[in-house]
Order: sequence, then structure tokens, then C-alpha cells
Amino acid sequence: MERTELASCLGAVRERTPLVQCITNFVTVNDCANILLAAGGSPTMAHDIREVEEAVAGVQALVLNLGAIGDVEAMLLAGKRANQLGIPVVLDPVAAGVTSLRREACRRLLAELRFTVIRGNASEIRALALGAEGGSGVDVSAGDAVTEENLSRGVELCRRLAESTGAVTALSGQVDILSDGTQTVLIRGGVPTMSRVTGSGCMLTALLGAFCGANPERPLAAAAAAVAAMDLAGERAEARRLQNGTGNATFRTDLIDAVFNLTEDELREGVRYEIYQG
Amino acid sequence: MERTELASCLGAVRERTPLVQCITNFVTVNDCANILLAAGGSPTMAHDIREVEEAVAGVQALVLNLGAIGDVEAMLLAGKRANQLGIPVVLDPVAAGVTSLRREACRRLLAELRFTVIRGNASEIRALALGAEGGSGVDVSAGDAVTEENLSRGVELCRRLAESTGAVTALSGQVDILSDGTQTVLIRGGVPTMSRVTGSGCMLTALLGAFCGANPERPLAAAAAAVAAMDLAGERAEARRLQNGTGNATFRTDLIDAVFNLTEDELREGVRYEIYQG
Amino acid sequence: MERTELASCLGAVRERTPLVQCITNFVTVNDCANILLAAGGSPTMAHDIREVEEAVAGVQALVLNLGAIGDVEAMLLAGKRANQLGIPVVLDPVAAGVTSLRREACRRLLAELRFTVIRGNASEIRALALGAEGGSGVDVSAGDAVTEENLSRGVELCRRLAESTGAVTALSGQVDILSDGTQTVLIRGGVPTMSRVTGSGCMLTALLGAFCGANPERPLAAAAAAVAAMDLAGERAEARRLQNGTGNATFRTDLIDAVFNLTEDELREGVRYEIYQG
Repeated sequence: MERTELASCLGAVRERTPLVQCITNFVTVNDCANILLAAGGSPTMAHDIREVEEAVAGVQALVLNLGAIGDVEAMLLAGKRANQLGIPVVLDPVAAGVTSLRREACRRLLAELRFTVIRGNASEIRALALGAEGGSGVDVSAGDAVTEENLSRGVELCRRLAESTGAVTALSGQVDILSDGTQTVLIRGGVPTMSRVTGSGCMLTALLGAFCGANPERPLAAAAAAVAAMDLAGERAEARRLQNGTGNATFRTDLIDAVFNLTEDELREGVRYEIYQG
Repeated sequence: MERTELASCLGAVRERTPLVQCITNFVTVNDCANILLAAGGSPTMAHDIREVEEAVAGVQALVLNLGAIGDVEAMLLAGKRANQLGIPVVLDPVAAGVTSLRREACRRLLAELRFTVIRGNASEIRALALGAEGGSGVDVSAGDAVTEENLSRGVELCRRLAESTGAVTALSGQVDILSDGTQTVLIRGGVPTMSRVTGSGCMLTALLGAFCGANPERPLAAAAAAVAAMDLAGERAEARRLQNGTGNATFRTDLIDAVFNLTEDELREGVRYEIYQG
Repeated sequence: MERTELASCLGAVRERTPLVQCITNFVTVNDCANILLAAGGSPTMAHDIREVEEAVAGVQALVLNLGAIGDVEAMLLAGKRANQLGIPVVLDPVAAGVTSLRREACRRLLAELRFTVIRGNASEIRALALGAEGGSGVDVSAGDAVTEENLSRGVELCRRLAESTGAVTALSGQVDILSDGTQTVLIRGGVPTMSRVTGSGCMLTALLGAFCGANPERPLAAAAAAVAAMDLAGERAEARRLQNGTGNATFRTDLIDAVFNLTEDELREGVRYEIYQG
């Protein structure tokens, strides 16, 4: 995996304008749609159980966001159809370990579907990898957060979930970790203000759908490119926030704008990644 | 229809502050509410089937947006009550031809309700006018898009749907076409960036509700004024985007701001319309 | 209640980062989440009836917004559990008197739950205090609005509802009135543009959750601090709007940013309140 390949994954999104179907939560659905459009994709948020199978046949990627906990049956139907058709499926296991309802939903989703990418924070990846309970709300628990100091723990969780599911696993944190079970990649970037915007995780998951939809033959590179794009966009938005003295709402707008304006050259030059050796 | 009349339709929105009830989708509902407030109207998004009939009795217009495909029964109840009370009803047939669920929903809505305005992109108007299948996602299919070169095809679809339904039909595209079956109006304006913002179509449909609610005696002029207002707002937002190097998220904010600040004089001077002869 | 105490209520939000669960409407849910993050809190919008009782056990405050009229059963379950656990519960009786469905929902919520704070506009507080019908849409009816001239009427409604429910009652208007039945506080501030943004009321209610969650031992001061914070943020956003010639969409963004940047010092110096004598 090289810088040039990551950049070309962004180029493919612009060129192929993948249609991405998201079954996602009502809190951040608008931002997910706009960041897909910013990246060069096209969103459809069809989620009615009576039409998801028919709708998914026309898309390039399917994103399942567990924030929409009431739509799990529709997710299963849509996901099975996508699996049959070979369409990439991305999972965001929002608050996976927080309630028994979510733990059971995750168990079924992992048992019945094959995912191309699973992306979550450390608490969520831990809940999926270990079947663990815990956490409250949608943010990472302090004790779970991945830092430079405990990287190996995050890598271990990522690898384990990648191996057991066959999915590229992306763990979002101070350092982003991606693994397909064989190769593990670390990406550094992003800014803490991203956690002061609701849906920064959901938006990244939507981007993962666009990047996988446009690059179905290289899911690890596609996922790494999406993560890098989001990190770089966050850094740009943060620079503007510090310059203009704005807050989290303007940051959200600037974040989406930054994805809109991100070029392949900027992604190639700006990504800070390394292949994990260990 | 003269420039002065279009401008006065905007004036009536500001003066009468129409209360507009939208049964609409969760993706763009917030933007629809804010653009109604920007124009000078007032939004209510009551959509629960147990209260829509009671709620609609207090409003000046009802907007039905098929993005809320789960609310079709509520739409039918609300629409019938609005028809009884003589309240304008506006339809946005989102993704009308894409799934059988939507085709059947459109069939029922057109069979059981009378609409004041139907607004959609070329794929949606085609699906309604011809009962046609097709498209994927919520955006117009490339083969359907109306351009200067194939205007007559779009005009034909608009007229046909206007004649069969009695509604003013508004087809959104590079050229906007409006027809009441007798008179057909072309409006030029807007910018391609509008298609990079989710909900630009839904927002226009919400505006159509406000303009028809404030001008119930002149639906074609009201609809043309709303379309012109949106086009002018889009142009203003695009000028800011190009000046400031922002993206689609700031464009969305600027678009709503531009509706907020649009004056009757600017609408009268800025609208580029012609009566279609052919 | 002193300026210093109000400022310290904001300090507590920043220090304790209360997790606030909102069962709220789909129109403004994203803004509610972002304003909670702006203030220093953390949002969770879990509302599925199968998990609300489990979810509420991990939060510092629960906000029930009647805009989510379809979730009343979930509100009752979550609210009872919060009452058992001593977690503050805040009610926003959106459009309380407009339909029989809402009047009945309010009757049940008031009968079965104990609220820490109830916040609404004059029409909503009147509907709850007097069991009255009336209004249309979600905005205050012209005849109900509280002004400097009819303050005593608003105070009377607030006191009555506070006495009958035991909740701090907060009536939003040109003058904000808060009462716990014994002490009544007037807060002046805010700007009319706030009524041109959908969800300014919902956002304030979300803030009330954060302030009560971080200050459970002093609900009247916490509520007054939240109201003052919103008023000051509105004034700051309005100053920017007038300076830059923007509109209601930018105002919304600036409003949330202003909460993000508001300091304890600014709140202490800026709040304009008085203890009502009469």
C-alpha cells in the first residue's frame, strides 16, 4: 500500500460517483448525506423494510449504522441481498456494548452478514471483538481509548475482529488502526475537536461506503484512504477554527467543506501512515 | 404572469407567514424547516397518523414528501382533509420510479388526492407522467435530465402530468419547467452545486408550500416565484462559494441565508423566465 | 441566587461533562446533540422502547421532547426509571395544546412522572398549567406571548405549573420567566432571530438537561444559567448576523459556536436577571 494508491482511491470516488445506501440514524443522517456528496459520491437513505432489498440492487455500497437500532431487520435483509450481489457492506456498531438490545443486534449482524469494513471507536470494537458489555452513550469510554501508549492493545482488538469476521476493521482514536487480519496500518492525524461534533464517526463510516463502493477490489487501501481523508479534513477545519475563533458548529461545516475540496495530491502528500510491525 | 406578480408572491409570504405542515423525510427535515423560516413562513412537521388530520386544519399548506415512504397512510389522511378544507397540497415524489413500493405509493396518492403543485426532477416527473419504472437513488438519471437541447421532451412530460392531475407541475433541472396544462413557463437559473447539497429539491418543495399557502389563488405564479427564489438564492450562494473557496456545506448554509435576505425587488429584477411557445 | 452561582453552573457542565439522553424529535435532534457538545456535555439519543430503561441508567439527565410524539411510551418508561434513580428529567411540551393526542400525552406525562424542569413557550406552559386547548404549529400564539406589559400573567402561569408539578417551570419569551413555585426569576436577553431558527427551543431544553445533570442539587440556578447561556449566545450570534449580513442558517451555526465559546466570566457579567417581587 503506497501513498499513490491511497490518493487514487479518492480519485476513483470522484470518477465513479458511487451511490451509497445508508441505513442510518436520524441524528446525523443529513451530515452523512452531505459528506457523501462532498466526497463525490451520491447518497440514498432508503431504509424501509419493504423496499431495502430492491433499493440495494442499484447501489455501489451499503452502510449499516447501528444508531438506527430500530432498523436491524431491514439491515439484515439489505445486507443479505448486498452479500448475494457482491456489493460492499460497511458496519458502524454504534454503542455496540451499551445495552443488551445492541449486543444482540451485533451478534445477529455478525452471524448473518459478511462485512467489507467494520468501523468503530475502541469501546465498540472491543465489544464486537470480545463480546464484551460496557460503555454508556455513544462515545468511547475513557478506559478503552487507544493512545500512543497502549497501541498494541488496539491492534490486537482490530486483528482479532478482522480475523473472526473477514472484514477490514478500522478502530478510530488518537491513532487510527486498520487491519485486514494480515496487514495492519496505523494512520495518525485528526484533531480532538472532531469528538465535539456529533456524527464525526458516522460521517467517516459513510465515507468508507463511498471509498469501498468506488474501490471494491482493494478494501484495505480504500478504508485507509477514507480515514486519511477524514483526518486531513479535520485538521483543515481545526486550522480554520483556531484562526477564526469559531466553535464546533462551524467546525462541522468546515469539515464537510474540506472533504469537498480535498485533492488527490493533498491526500498523497498529507497522509501520515505506517505499516504496523509487531 | 409578470415580474411584478412573482415578486408580490414573495411579499405575500412575508406578510402572511403561512404555517406549512410537512410530512417529510428525516434526512432533510431540518433544512426544510429552516428554509421555511428563512422565506417568512412557519414550519410544523407533525406527521403522526393519529394527529395529522387535526393538525392540518390549522395550517395554510400541506407538503407531502415521498422520502417519508413510511408515512404514506398519514399523507393520505392529511391530504384528504386538506382537500376538503381547500388547503393547498404540494407533492414531492422522491425517487418515484425506483422501487415498486414507491410506484404503488404514487399511484395511490395521485388517485386519492388533488394536488396544487407536484415538483420533481425529470426522472420523477417521468415516472408519474408515464407510470414508468427506473432510476436508482434520489437523483435524476443521466438519460432523463432536461437540458436546453431536449427541452421539448421535458415540457411534454410536465404538460401531460399537469393535464392528468390538474396540478401545476414543476420539473427541476438545468432549465426549470412549470406547467398548469395550459400555460408553460421556463425559468433559467440555479447552479450545479445545488445538486451537491442533500435536500435542495426537498427545500424547494417546502418553499412551494409556503408560496402556495400565501398565494392560494394563483398557484402557477406562486410556484414560479418559489422556483425563481431558489434559483436566485443558489446563484448567490455559489458566488460566495467561489469567492471564499468553501464547499457544499457552507453552500447549504448560504443558500438558506440567501432566501432569508432575498427581497421582492431582487426577485423581480433577477428572475429569468419566459412563457414557452411551442 | 447570585451571578457567581449561575456562572459556576456552567463551570460544572464543563467539568462533569454530563451524558444527557434525549428522546426528541427528528427535526432538531442534530442541533440538540451539537449544542450539548458545545456546552461541554455529551449526547445520547437512544429512544427505542426496548432499551431506554437500560440506557437511562448510565446518564446524568433525561430530556423528553414532545416533538417525538410517537415515543411517548418510551418516554414514560425512561422517565419512571430516571425518577427511581434520582436522575433529573426535563420536559419540553412541544405544541402541547394543539391536538388531542398531545393534550392526552401531556396529561399522562404529568400524571406519571416527576420533572426537574418543564420548559416551553407561553402557549405550551398555558396548555399545561390550565389544561387548555389552542395554538397551531409549534410557535407561540400571538395572544399568548409574554411581553414586558403582561409579565404578571406569565408569572402566574409559571408559578401555577411549578406548584402543581414540583418542577422548575421555565417560560421562554421576550422575558424569560423561571419559577420553582417559591422563587421566581426573570431573565432578559435573547433576540427575535432565535424564533427564525427551528429548534431554538429544543436546543435550550437540551441545554437544561446538561445544566441539571451537572448541577442536580440546584435546579433553579441550573435552569437560570442555561437560559442565560442561550440568551447570551443568541445575542452574540445576532451581532455577527448584523455585522456580516447573513441569515438564519448562519445564525444557527453561530448560536451553537457561541455556546461552545461562552466562558463563566462572560455568563457572570452578561446575565441580566432579577428576582421577581410581586
